[in-house]
Amino acid sequence: MDPVEHAYAHELFERLFRELSAIGLDAAGATTRLAWTPEAAAAARWFDQTARALGLEPERDACGNQWAWLGERGPGAVVSGSHLDSVREGGRYDGALGVVAGFVAVHLAARRRELGGRDGGPLAAVTLGVVAFADEEGGRFDSPTFGSRALCGTLDVAAALERRDRDGVSLRDALSAFGVDPDGIGPEPERLAQIGALVELHIEQDTLLEREGAALALGTRIMPHGRWRLDLHGEAAHAGTTPIDARRDPMLALAEAVSAAHAAALRHGALATVGKLEVSPNATNAVAERVSAWLDVRAAQESTVAGTVDDVLAAIRARADHDGVRVEMRRESFTPAVEFSPALRARVAAVLTERGLRALPMATGAGHDAGALAACVPTAMLFVRSDGGAGHSPREHARSEDCLTGIGALTDVLLELANQESGALADV
Amino acid sequence: MDPVEHAYAHELFERLFRELSAIGLDAAGATTRLAWTPEAAAAARWFDQTARALGLEPERDACGNQWAWLGERGPGAVVSGSHLDSVREGGRYDGALGVVAGFVAVHLAARRRELGGRDGGPLAAVTLGVVAFADEEGGRFDSPTFGSRALCGTLDVAAALERRDRDGVSLRDALSAFGVDPDGIGPEPERLAQIGALVELHIEQDTLLEREGAALALGTRIMPHGRWRLDLHGEAAHAGTTPIDARRDPMLALAEAVSAAHAAALRHGALATVGKLEVSPNATNAVAERVSAWLDVRAAQESTVAGTVDDVLAAIRARADHDGVRVEMRRESFTPAVEFSPALRARVAAVLTERGLRALPMATGAGHDAGALAACVPTAMLFVRSDGGAGHSPREHARSEDCLTGIGALTDVLLELANQESGALADV
Repeated sequence: MDPVEHAYAHELFERLFRELSAIGLDAAGATTRLAWTPEAAAAARWFDQTARALGLEPERDACGNQWAWLGERGPGAVVSGSHLDSVREGGRYDGALGVVAGFVAVHLAARRRELGGRDGGPLAAVTLGVVAFADEEGGRFDSPTFGSRALCGTLDVAAALERRDRDGVSLRDALSAFGVDPDGIGPEPERLAQIGALVELHIEQDTLLEREGAALALGTRIMPHGRWRLDLHGEAAHAGTTPIDARRDPMLALAEAVSAAHAAALRHGALATVGKLEVSPNATNAVAERVSAWLDVRAAQESTVAGTVDDVLAAIRARADHDGVRVEMRRESFTPAVEFSPALRARVAAVLTERGLRALPMATGAGHDAGALAACVPTAMLFVRSDGGAGHSPREHARSEDCLTGIGALTDVLLELANQESGALADV
Repeated sequence: MDPVEHAYAHELFERLFRELSAIGLDAAGATTRLAWTPEAAAAARWFDQTARALGLEPERDACGNQWAWLGERGPGAVVSGSHLDSVREGGRYDGALGVVAGFVAVHLAARRRELGGRDGGPLAAVTLGVVAFADEEGGRFDSPTFGSRALCGTLDVAAALERRDRDGVSLRDALSAFGVDPDGIGPEPERLAQIGALVELHIEQDTLLEREGAALALGTRIMPHGRWRLDLHGEAAHAGTTPIDARRDPMLALAEAVSAAHAAALRHGALATVGKLEVSPNATNAVAERVSAWLDVRAAQESTVAGTVDDVLAAIRARADHDGVRVEMRRESFTPAVEFSPALRARVAAVLTERGLRALPMATGAGHDAGALAACVPTAMLFVRSDGGAGHSPREHARSEDCLTGIGALTDVLLELANQESGALADV
């Protein structure tokens, strides 16, 4: 970006990011924008208003994903975006940065075309778009990448609709209340067929770029990743009268699950996390009747994920058998390894190299909409350096300068892809 | 009880217990009647209506405890009762049995007086009463024996009023909404001075009586008992990108707390329970920022409780230091050992022996209102055999025949105490 464009982009980025960051921010500085909530509705309004203010035409698809289009709809569209929802008490950058970056980059692309110059070519022939996928985090219904998987047809929608949040509200009812018809959710092949490429920009949430002294990475693959739900069934008992050896306390198997997950992750070189628990009746003076725990496992290879989960389950079973506790373990989701489109990656890498931008190749353990979409359209991901590596935390941060470096690269990439798509279409 | 009285008592007991059991019962058969809730209000209405139907005069004291009086108010009153609140998803007997037994026994005492006979003596000179203490379980605000301790003046009311339930409602606001003036709560020495004796009947919630083949026990003491709150402060992080060795995961210290509590309890011959947890943000795909756990410890001796807690804390600290997790531990409540009034116990034991009833002496690890009241009035407890020993569980059960044995004994005890009190007053 030249200095004038940089100043222009900086102002627009700061304003959009500030507006969006205010939604769902609590007094402690944490962001909670769960899908299908009032905070999600406020973010959706922000998306529509921002699109219109920038001259884009907003729409919502049947899966609840939001789109904003620049120019006539047609084949070969080049789209950028991410998601607007967050985890509970998360940060301001995860997802949000990608949507803001999409808006700024598409706007800069249009501006360059108006101003003319090197990139002001045949853009009109190819549509540029911004997208915000619905419920990427799955923080309310444990239904991650809901919108992108539903759009691709890789989600078991019927099963997802029956899931309930912690207040007992089903996803079906939450969607209806939000104005999305639950029975209309499903794949949209025509929409997908018109997308030539999707490029998602995202905060890194790791320390690779910081350690390497680079601002940008180009995604190579998403590691295989699964979530398992553990239900440990014991027997409620009075904490003050029930002898230790007469108890069937599921808390002991939980402790084993947590310790075993940690040990197995270190042993296998995997990531294993127990971050969510439910205890019933959850009373100080009662031995628990039931403890539910969610185990999240990711690794470079599927066999490593499986080995880690097997080790954890074996350890839990040994403890639970000893205590008379019944173990149920159910896989709630599994995403095989995703390779981003090699052809698109090569095209993006070529643009970055041509512009003198350094982008490290990077595999990630985090799930992303671009990973889900990779099943049906060519996708690529750009990662922007994290400040301190935090993710899913209020401490999540990326320096503005790094965000702008990413936005500049994204603008170059979108324009070049649009030009290539346009040429490819002209060749037909 | 003679066969006619037994049939009469059986019918009244079954009816009252059935009415009360219906309040707060869920489809799975669990009872949830937390203090200051709509279920508590329904139970309070049941108490008032039952009192009036049996010819007793109901009233509520400034602490929210309910009383029902037979005869003129005056010194030397003999009172029986327990509490109407339950833990979350608890059973039908804990507390409820004692209130129903109080009503039935006081009614049988009055009936015997009307019918004349051996016990139909100078009852009119001494008041009989039934009591339901407020919030014995502390299941909503972690404020166990709230009503009885507030009445005695042994509760830090100001601190308790600031406690919040899981929805963020303060006890102060919950009391106001319930119609109890929070600023009016405090000890009532005049009321207590008029009580000559309190006898609480309670389900055993243990297997001692079952093992010994006896229906009744007479309480000797309540073991010392404390609750500690543990706050384990880690750092929220993305489960898919944060390396295991870069995490500050408080879940590992929780696992250590649970395992160490179990081991320390076995080593010291104590009871130690972690039955309640809170996790923040409690998301599948985020390392927890904070885990809070409540540790409940009881033992025959205070030194054993202290030794158990010290061992648990040392184990947690070792793990937490290793993980960069900060530990806060705070004692939320502590009740020293309570000896029930030796004089009253001797009087109760004499009555039971005279009637040929066998009552085993029994110490208990469970807190009770009679334990809290022991600080200011002579109290005694009768325990009725548990079926299977369950407590704080939907499986909590006592056979009707055992309940009626307890009620018969309680009737005898109340009448004899009333006669003795009456004589003692006449001597003044």
